[in-house]
Amino acid sequence: MLGRIDHIGVAVEDLEASLQLYAEVLGMPVVHRETVAEQGVEAVLLDVGENHVELLAPLGPDTPVGRYVAKNGPGLHHVAYQVADVEATLAALAAAGTRLIDETPRNGIRGSRVAFVHPAATGGVLTEIVQPAEEH
Amino acid sequence: MLGRIDHIGVAVEDLEASLQLYAEVLGMPVVHRETVAEQGVEAVLLDVGENHVELLAPLGPDTPVGRYVAKNGPGLHHVAYQVADVEATLAALAAAGTRLIDETPRNGIRGSRVAFVHPAATGGVLTEIVQPAEEH
Repeated sequence: MLGRIDHIGVAVEDLEASLQLYAEVLGMPVVHRETVAEQGVEAVLLDVGENHVELLAPLGPDTPVGRYVAKNGPGLHHVAYQVADVEATLAALAAAGTRLIDETPRNGIRGSRVAFVHPAATGGVLTEIVQPAEEH
Repeated sequence: MLGRIDHIGVAVEDLEASLQLYAEVLGMPVVHRETVAEQGVEAVLLDVGENHVELLAPLGPDTPVGRYVAKNGPGLHHVAYQVADVEATLAALAAAGTRLIDETPRNGIRGSRVAFVHPAATGGVLTEIVQPAEEH
């Protein structure tokens, strides 16, 4: 049902410092940068093998990632798996009784279609499924 | 310097329940199971694309993963990236001034050689580098 890890989401406090760390010290190429106002984040995507690291900087304290950082500090926020058909995967998960955050997909970065599974259904791990845009 | 995501490590409280979730509900094949007494965990590896999910159940409360679960609850514990040469990568990270947990590699599961970078050096993300055994 799930394909490779699309990305891990990392909640950061200081986007430029984190970017310098991941790009310069760890050597990951930056491939995309986007502000997603509806999710309250500025996101930067870096390549690592066929996978990505997504740095997430909150646009303010009263956003999901802002509240996460205030409570837990910066660090691993979620994991995202690639799927061929996000609607079909959501339907299969719902049919298996899996608790979802998103009953229907929403728009992700780079034209992807995404949905979040509730961490209560996945052992405390905030889990995203991603149907990449055709060109990625 | 870093290759694809080898695995994400997930700290769990109930290994059988988590295994059922990842194997049955999310459909990931189990490929390996090993007790690593020196790290105080029972580990199960599942395939997802070219990557893996590593479920980590503490062997007792007074272990690194046991203390993590007591403090944070179950959830995302670390991320591991593949490298061709763990010694060379450690040397490069140290030369860049990166704070390490392991100055020299230790034995990981399935015959791998691994080392941990300190989360203070990676924006709060416990980061592992993994040189897989030849056959994996």
